[in-house]
Amino acid sequence: MIQALPQLKPWMIDPAELLPVGARLPWERVFDGLPFGRDGLLPALGQQYASGEVLMLAWMNRAALRETLATRHVCYWSHSRARLWRKGETSGHAQHLREMRLGCDGDAPLLLVEQTGPAYHTGRASCFYNAVRGDRVQVISSALQRSGHD
Amino acid sequence: MIQALPQLKPWMIDPAELLPVGARLPWERVFDGLPFGRDGLLPALGQQYASGEVLMLAWMNRAALRETLATRHVCYWSHSRARLWRKGETSGHAQHLREMRLGCDGDAPLLLVEQTGPAYHTGRASCFYNAVRGDRVQVISSALQRSGHD
Repeated sequence: MIQALPQLKPWMIDPAELLPVGARLPWERVFDGLPFGRDGLLPALGQQYASGEVLMLAWMNRAALRETLATRHVCYWSHSRARLWRKGETSGHAQHLREMRLGCDGDAPLLLVEQTGPAYHTGRASCFYNAVRGDRVQVISSALQRSGHD
Repeated sequence: MIQALPQLKPWMIDPAELLPVGARLPWERVFDGLPFGRDGLLPALGQQYASGEVLMLAWMNRAALRETLATRHVCYWSHSRARLWRKGETSGHAQHLREMRLGCDGDAPLLLVEQTGPAYHTGRASCFYNAVRGDRVQVISSALQRSGHD
């Protein structure tokens, strides 16, 4: 079942909103309409497939998104290095893509991944190790090991 | 244990990187240094506290973040309405904040919430109901009910 898309907005996958489970849209048209910002980037979210733990929020440009789907190895865009960032390229701790999902506005790829080793270069499983508690921000997980800086 | 912050970068909570579990930073200084974009916004991620399901990615400005912490009811910034968006204000499906966490660069609040009712106005539990599968994007959860448009 492939739906006709008479009114696909250039920046939304809105027609999927009321479609039943199993309905499909053509990826190339959805991709062409993804709302990359003026900087050419979308926020992308890495989540551990098995546990549901949120690992990181990073950024993707069109090339990173294409490469990730083609290779099933997650590739982000590194602001600091201003180039494609193939997760694990220095640390060996890659993210294998199990599934990519898109939000209702297509504005943030959710990457369900199998992370081999820690996501974060201090050895933490997740980047989100700072909890806001009252008037303090508290570190809630240990830096277990140093690994490559990616 | 409150850490001295001799070299707090204006846009990072980087000093926490190698701190042990339980170490604390002053929230006000971290808040002042959060890397809100030129539009005054940060991406913010809503995750179901109990199940780990990622519910939505939205945006927060400083006021939304302040209000969320003060009231424990999640408040985003609505692009489309160009105003604060108190989740559930029309639908009744609010998000109660259990914990806010910050990523290693402080660039994305992760909101662990208890969502009362569906996150999304079509009645889906999560916004991320579009899975990229081969050359198609497939709807993977049902629109169960219509609720208020927030």
